[in-house]
Amino acid sequence: MINLSDNQKRWVPWMRRSIQLAQLAEGRTSPNPLVGSIVLDSNGRLVGEGFHTGAGNPHAEIEALTQAGKKSVEGTIVVTLEPCCHQGLTPPCTEAIIKAGLKTVVIGMVDPDPRVSGNGISRLKDSGLEVIEGVLSQECESINREFSFRVRHGRPWGILKWAMSLDGRISLPNGCSKWITDIPARHSVHRIRSKCDAVIVGGGTVRADNPLLTSRGKSNSEPLRVVFSRTLNLPPSAKLWDTKIARTIVAYGPESDESLLDNLPDGPEKLRLSSDSPLELLSSLAKKGCNKILWECGPKLATSAIEANCVQELVVFVAPKLLGGISSMSPLNNFGFEEIKSTYKLQHSFLERKGGDLSWRLLL
Amino acid sequence: MINLSDNQKRWVPWMRRSIQLAQLAEGRTSPNPLVGSIVLDSNGRLVGEGFHTGAGNPHAEIEALTQAGKKSVEGTIVVTLEPCCHQGLTPPCTEAIIKAGLKTVVIGMVDPDPRVSGNGISRLKDSGLEVIEGVLSQECESINREFSFRVRHGRPWGILKWAMSLDGRISLPNGCSKWITDIPARHSVHRIRSKCDAVIVGGGTVRADNPLLTSRGKSNSEPLRVVFSRTLNLPPSAKLWDTKIARTIVAYGPESDESLLDNLPDGPEKLRLSSDSPLELLSSLAKKGCNKILWECGPKLATSAIEANCVQELVVFVAPKLLGGISSMSPLNNFGFEEIKSTYKLQHSFLERKGGDLSWRLLL
Repeated sequence: MINLSDNQKRWVPWMRRSIQLAQLAEGRTSPNPLVGSIVLDSNGRLVGEGFHTGAGNPHAEIEALTQAGKKSVEGTIVVTLEPCCHQGLTPPCTEAIIKAGLKTVVIGMVDPDPRVSGNGISRLKDSGLEVIEGVLSQECESINREFSFRVRHGRPWGILKWAMSLDGRISLPNGCSKWITDIPARHSVHRIRSKCDAVIVGGGTVRADNPLLTSRGKSNSEPLRVVFSRTLNLPPSAKLWDTKIARTIVAYGPESDESLLDNLPDGPEKLRLSSDSPLELLSSLAKKGCNKILWECGPKLATSAIEANCVQELVVFVAPKLLGGISSMSPLNNFGFEEIKSTYKLQHSFLERKGGDLSWRLLL
Repeated sequence: MINLSDNQKRWVPWMRRSIQLAQLAEGRTSPNPLVGSIVLDSNGRLVGEGFHTGAGNPHAEIEALTQAGKKSVEGTIVVTLEPCCHQGLTPPCTEAIIKAGLKTVVIGMVDPDPRVSGNGISRLKDSGLEVIEGVLSQECESINREFSFRVRHGRPWGILKWAMSLDGRISLPNGCSKWITDIPARHSVHRIRSKCDAVIVGGGTVRADNPLLTSRGKSNSEPLRVVFSRTLNLPPSAKLWDTKIARTIVAYGPESDESLLDNLPDGPEKLRLSSDSPLELLSSLAKKGCNKILWECGPKLATSAIEANCVQELVVFVAPKLLGGISSMSPLNNFGFEEIKSTYKLQHSFLERKGGDLSWRLLL
């Protein structure tokens, strides 16, 4: 709201409403962004509202314009994201806006998608519409942080989660880790999963914990479950191989013994990568439509994910328990740091209590 | 305040004031408790206030009665702790109260000291005074938690403190730990020291960190600094050997090679114990007047202190940094747990942000 002109400021309340509308589809639009829109008639009365409900469905502008009908003539459309000007799964929104006879278009943020990225705005201006940009742009960008990250970097936004005791252990020396945190923290993990497009573990986690990795019904579409295995030394039976509840992908690098895939049932898809790099895995997942993924892996994979810049956010649960155990697992392996000042420093932290446990979210 | 009779309730505001007075001497009265007192005249007007300022100084009741002078006749004295009835460093308070001609004595909590423990109350009742007990007793006990613990158990209340990274490390693999936490958290440690009677480290901490262990002027009397060494393998020069700022004790067990003491300068006192048990060390410190001690030691000593019930409270600082390092030190060693449900569970937690770091206080 800083440094907005009067002509921008008057649209702030309507942009806020558009953001609210956009957020109604949180976690359901990948690979598309969240978009909300409202239409006002020539007298400034609200005549249409809409939001994007998922890839392949109408864009927010079309929903709002359809609701407004002829009342949009000489009116204003407010939209959180620059309208598209290309034929995707649906026709370009710029053409629908021009056809609707609107006078003004108010836009929250420029679309980072190179097929749009200013071209939508130019198309509208060239057609004689007044375009007002930059209204609550930070807020609009914030609700699409993961979408923008994926578009700009070619890989999804990565969240790394672990749960540890007060003395920094993620398991006992015998490998036992059920349950370090209590039910509210575990529910919180299910909620995080419900907002991610994929959940990634390594083979070790499958062998040790046999996890289910679903949102336990907290999302209509369960996240894609990904096992990233270097060795393909995977158990022939595991909860993840049952793909009735959610899809599973077994991803593996070039040095894996592919004959071991014969031990697995048919349910999981197989994804051969040309390297063991978390970066290549994430690029593949971006191409499959993932904007946001969750690493729920052990220390080895977590450490290489961080080193490969595949972790943007951390969610650490700390339980008020003391496990001890010199050979107990810690959350991360070696980075090779020699000085504290060289270590990773996290910021913008958000702290919550989940029952007796703590949940600390930070940006890396 | 639950289940108080009307005759108890009317004294609650004056007991609150007495508690406030008592707390003015926080951290300065060991081995004595914090005590505050007020005197009202026969018309219920405040005529005296006092608190105990330290061992050997007058008790709170005497301070308040001195201020009240003759106005205390037929009046009331309110005191957070049962008045003493024995000759200690100062004469018994019961006799002074009786002599002052008071009518009523209002008492917060019974003194756990077996030399008093109800005998003070009996003496007052036997002399014809009205005695009202149990006014804000929980609050009165809470300000003297450590004193009561020491009296009941024969050892001081133990606080264990550590500072770790978000991934549960207290140092890098090369031993470097300066500084995992930022300045506000380190100031907080100085404040905790200022409220403890002694700070204990092991020989390893002296060798690795060469700490100063003072409150950096946050307390008039610095805590006693204790090095608990099994081997007496201690560096000939260390900040702790300079006892101009604060006293230092080198405590050691029966298997130590006492000839190594010759390597140390004369400043530190030497304390030979008959075992390596933290329990025996704490019993000795109780006899030296410690009500509350702070363990600032490495994982080995911290683990044995916990196992010996010598830790009642934990203060854990967590920094938003990632250190990594399989061979980095963790806060604790082995307890030998086989199941999560057998592990230590902490409670009554108090969470604070100290700059970018977290401070989590819990009871064990």
